[in-house]
Amino acid sequence: MHFLSDNAARACPEVLQAVLNANDVVDGAYDSDSISARLDSGFSDLFGIDCRVFPVSTGTAANALALAAMLPPFGAVVCHEEAHIHVDEAGAPEFYTAGAKLLLADGDGAKLTPESVAKTMAPMRGDVHQVAVRALSLTQATEYGRVYTPDEIMALSADAARRGWHVHMDGARFANAIATLGCHPGDVTWRAGVDALSFGFIKNGGMSAEALIIFTSELAETIPLRRKRAGQMPSKGRFAAAQLLAMIEDDVWLRNARRANAGAQRLGAAAADRLMHRVDANEVFLRIGVPGATLLREQGFDFYDWGDEGAGEARFVVAWDTPDGDVDALAKAIGSLPI
Amino acid sequence: MHFLSDNAARACPEVLQAVLNANDVVDGAYDSDSISARLDSGFSDLFGIDCRVFPVSTGTAANALALAAMLPPFGAVVCHEEAHIHVDEAGAPEFYTAGAKLLLADGDGAKLTPESVAKTMAPMRGDVHQVAVRALSLTQATEYGRVYTPDEIMALSADAARRGWHVHMDGARFANAIATLGCHPGDVTWRAGVDALSFGFIKNGGMSAEALIIFTSELAETIPLRRKRAGQMPSKGRFAAAQLLAMIEDDVWLRNARRANAGAQRLGAAAADRLMHRVDANEVFLRIGVPGATLLREQGFDFYDWGDEGAGEARFVVAWDTPDGDVDALAKAIGSLPI
Amino acid sequence: MHFLSDNAARACPEVLQAVLNANDVVDGAYDSDSISARLDSGFSDLFGIDCRVFPVSTGTAANALALAAMLPPFGAVVCHEEAHIHVDEAGAPEFYTAGAKLLLADGDGAKLTPESVAKTMAPMRGDVHQVAVRALSLTQATEYGRVYTPDEIMALSADAARRGWHVHMDGARFANAIATLGCHPGDVTWRAGVDALSFGFIKNGGMSAEALIIFTSELAETIPLRRKRAGQMPSKGRFAAAQLLAMIEDDVWLRNARRANAGAQRLGAAAADRLMHRVDANEVFLRIGVPGATLLREQGFDFYDWGDEGAGEARFVVAWDTPDGDVDALAKAIGSLPI
Amino acid sequence: MHFLSDNAARACPEVLQAVLNANDVVDGAYDSDSISARLDSGFSDLFGIDCRVFPVSTGTAANALALAAMLPPFGAVVCHEEAHIHVDEAGAPEFYTAGAKLLLADGDGAKLTPESVAKTMAPMRGDVHQVAVRALSLTQATEYGRVYTPDEIMALSADAARRGWHVHMDGARFANAIATLGCHPGDVTWRAGVDALSFGFIKNGGMSAEALIIFTSELAETIPLRRKRAGQMPSKGRFAAAQLLAMIEDDVWLRNARRANAGAQRLGAAAADRLMHRVDANEVFLRIGVPGATLLREQGFDFYDWGDEGAGEARFVVAWDTPDGDVDALAKAIGSLPI
Repeated sequence: MHFLSDNAARACPEVLQAVLNANDVVDGAYDSDSISARLDSGFSDLFGIDCRVFPVSTGTAANALALAAMLPPFGAVVCHEEAHIHVDEAGAPEFYTAGAKLLLADGDGAKLTPESVAKTMAPMRGDVHQVAVRALSLTQATEYGRVYTPDEIMALSADAARRGWHVHMDGARFANAIATLGCHPGDVTWRAGVDALSFGFIKNGGMSAEALIIFTSELAETIPLRRKRAGQMPSKGRFAAAQLLAMIEDDVWLRNARRANAGAQRLGAAAADRLMHRVDANEVFLRIGVPGATLLREQGFDFYDWGDEGAGEARFVVAWDTPDGDVDALAKAIGSLPI
Repeated sequence: MHFLSDNAARACPEVLQAVLNANDVVDGAYDSDSISARLDSGFSDLFGIDCRVFPVSTGTAANALALAAMLPPFGAVVCHEEAHIHVDEAGAPEFYTAGAKLLLADGDGAKLTPESVAKTMAPMRGDVHQVAVRALSLTQATEYGRVYTPDEIMALSADAARRGWHVHMDGARFANAIATLGCHPGDVTWRAGVDALSFGFIKNGGMSAEALIIFTSELAETIPLRRKRAGQMPSKGRFAAAQLLAMIEDDVWLRNARRANAGAQRLGAAAADRLMHRVDANEVFLRIGVPGATLLREQGFDFYDWGDEGAGEARFVVAWDTPDGDVDALAKAIGSLPI
Repeated sequence: MHFLSDNAARACPEVLQAVLNANDVVDGAYDSDSISARLDSGFSDLFGIDCRVFPVSTGTAANALALAAMLPPFGAVVCHEEAHIHVDEAGAPEFYTAGAKLLLADGDGAKLTPESVAKTMAPMRGDVHQVAVRALSLTQATEYGRVYTPDEIMALSADAARRGWHVHMDGARFANAIATLGCHPGDVTWRAGVDALSFGFIKNGGMSAEALIIFTSELAETIPLRRKRAGQMPSKGRFAAAQLLAMIEDDVWLRNARRANAGAQRLGAAAADRLMHRVDANEVFLRIGVPGATLLREQGFDFYDWGDEGAGEARFVVAWDTPDGDVDALAKAIGSLPI
Repeated sequence: MHFLSDNAARACPEVLQAVLNANDVVDGAYDSDSISARLDSGFSDLFGIDCRVFPVSTGTAANALALAAMLPPFGAVVCHEEAHIHVDEAGAPEFYTAGAKLLLADGDGAKLTPESVAKTMAPMRGDVHQVAVRALSLTQATEYGRVYTPDEIMALSADAARRGWHVHMDGARFANAIATLGCHPGDVTWRAGVDALSFGFIKNGGMSAEALIIFTSELAETIPLRRKRAGQMPSKGRFAAAQLLAMIEDDVWLRNARRANAGAQRLGAAAADRLMHRVDANEVFLRIGVPGATLLREQGFDFYDWGDEGAGEARFVVAWDTPDGDVDALAKAIGSLPI
């Protein structure tokens, strides 16, 4: 039973059907087809503001493109020390920005705070010997499955604006965050001062397309050429566009995310005393001990060990398509672990 | 009737079915699934040599990754002055290589010759004031739909080897070339001294995956990290792998290419006196005059004007799914143009 | 007798004295000393316009920094196919710009013309598949010792402005050009539409400092950080600043250049029928035949062979400190060569 | 009285004389002159091993070049969180390496330990999602004027070797470290496992040249082209080479460093109870309180405040040419500060 990640989950039926439907739409290559032409308006409707949408093949590409639009090569972005862009993207931000720096801040649950950002900025003098900080990047939901409230984001963005920075949001699990917050997607993005969102779909029932959403129009200017140059402009763009549109039609993205979140909540409730982080999305981090991990694996559950070797910590991810029975079985198995 | 490009053609049924079949194979993220695991052996069987396969989302990414594996930032590659990597990839090779140079050579039909390469190399002294040339890149079939014979490639590769270079082949229309040559795919690649092939599938009935094939194993060493860093490592890698495998099973790639080539041959035969280049693949370049272009467009044919403005030259591309009737109609219409 | 290059010439006495004088000026590190503080006003006076001055250690750094300020990584500059920035800087422009392209134009004597630029631009469509051309770079005097008149530069700049480009001038031998033209240095730079000048001093009696001059103020914004990041901001900046100021005080730069030019004129006059290019500066390109080259070397003259191997062409460079006797001896020796 | 930095100190007489002497040595441009030709042997004699020497114009360039030779763009180096290469070089390492990462470790007095390195490496899994760590960089003397013993370096290098890393040493104040340690310069470099040393001279009585020393020959292979491409290859290379040779002849570098260190020792002794770090080189970090800082400045001493605003900490640097009287005056003034 898979709790390793939502990275290998199925594509949902709506996405598959959209791909099939797109096949006969042969009216244009690159982004000139009639499906791609609907992207900007579709997402503008969803977010309640005119925005630009750039399909890419991975979340890493979305993040790195957004940062490249914000940062000169001599620039820097402040992000959490456990941010995916720092830890798990093999230096993609440095590649796309031609060598900008990631300045690391701490914060519980991988959440930044104005205080943690200020601490990171303390040694930065703003002179010619130091890189020029130009952006803040935050992850919604975070790498520990925690969620920023609109107010929290607004506080960080106000701080960033005061410093003259742009704000990027890594939304690999943005849908899970919105499903939990129950707010309008604009409330934690452009209304809260976010300039660009890497809107993740693949973990949440998509197949092979993610979306970079640009709310602040001047940031979009350089992206078409950067995207092409990165090998991220597919000739049959309609197949990517169709996936993205299928996900936002009829709230498929929210329905899928709610299902995953619900499973995580059930797991979290069954292991309340083992929780390392509050369950805000579809990830559950538990202290189960090394013997506990072994017991669970013997029962057929797979998942990632977390933290330092021998820490006895584990991450369980519920995907949109994780069978209810698997969640129940895991909840029960965890409940039966020796304390 | 579309003769603009093969870039917007349909995905063929075998590819669509493979994508659907891949959906339930949820046994691993990134490249750890059981479909991705079959890539290396599948292509090694096809080429008759152990090779490594890296799926990417565009031909541009395949080309740029290959060059990045061959060239240091202070390096250079010799390619044709009309090569796609120079003219139409928005600087992707320079991006992926961190600033290597493309040194341009001429040659009829966008084909390089040992003589044209030598002419380009004449001013290169090999000292510290000049970039270090380390690779040759050639396109099979070329940007003018011409095909290199195995002997021609061997002559270029022998020359490259003597200079200590690697050889890259941009095979955006590799299938069309092989369909014309009737040779084994190894005959114009590794057996002829080619180290890396950007094997194009999307134009030829694929959907969203191209393959970078590495024949010379040490060149593969840095590619996994470069690919990840470029945002070209999809979490649901199985969907890309499934497409590639579907294309090479049962010779789908050759069948599709033969069909496109046959259409181009019919067009070429109908306009033999207007041909700008011999028709070796699925592209037909014709002198039709500006009034001829207008007449054809009035009859519903779309295609690219070529060459300088007012040159009256045009490119017609036949795709794997171009209806026979469209080809016949175009052939007839061209036959009826005033000379 | 050295006619290889002006690259190894002496530093002139004024420069040496300025370096010694600067030693005790210990009032600030990096650019905060009182000598560096005089750079902007000193050069602004010389050029008759407010400009910014950035000392660097090589002409290559000056050129590459200027281009980095003008070009995004997805950009391009048009330059002559024999331009130093393309042929002899080991890819420095590509390095500093993070991968921008150099698009090559032809032109007699390494001089660009609006027509040659237009020919290079003909295949550029301005779409997302091609790099964005943003600058023109020309060399004054050119790599063949030819000089652009103010009108010629104005024509090129007007053309560039119409296209939305910036204009960079590689002035490795700018002093020699001005000495020949007899015009104000502003006449071939900012008054003629040039935005940035790599003002060369080292060949002309300097020691270890070149100057990047920025006439268009917004271009200067990113240079301080780019310069620092390139390792081009010396802690004892006063030693570089002192050299530059010494060169422009009392017209030392012009006096040195006039002396070198006069030698070249004498050589050119003595070999009028062998001239490959008109002598506009301090370089003389001659057809002397392979046996002639041998004869001259046997008499103790050193110089570079030029052109293809066996072409029998040679370049002679007269430096500011080349002894008159050496010039006379060479002139006589050339006059005695068999025709 | 200047205690801000050793960055603006005088060039010592030996260096000035060497520059003057070099002027008439016009026997070759770039590195082909007879003075540059003595660099490798001169430094090989000094270090007791065959090494390669690359003059550059700044320590930043030396550091960044060394790292570029060690790291692929997808690589990383571990360094101290207060290392100059991270904090004060405006991203030069990221620029020269085309985007490699600096992974930060802690350690008292800006000194790394095997334990601090291990802590930094704990989250690095060595898979394709993370950059490939390939080097360790340490500063001798450190940014807090502390010195590594040969044993300490050997322990770090052994650890690095076990991980397959190269070792770089930022020796901006290497002379001060050796003067304190009293060991052979080889003892803390190649004999202790260091592959490349940025050997600083400018702070220690040099004028405009630093030396990158490569002990591990294969690392030198790419440096000539990288150096040229960075605009760090001066045409009149003899002026830089002469400075470097003058510094190592007759132990000038050690004599200058000993003088600076002695001054720092006197200051340290006079303020033993205020010391933040042991005085190992020519820097003295003191807790003087905000009022104390004001008092000292009123008496004409300049220096940098250190640490957070209002921390009342200060850095005093003694240069090779700081007058003894200035040191005595400062020592006395500090002794008179209210506790």
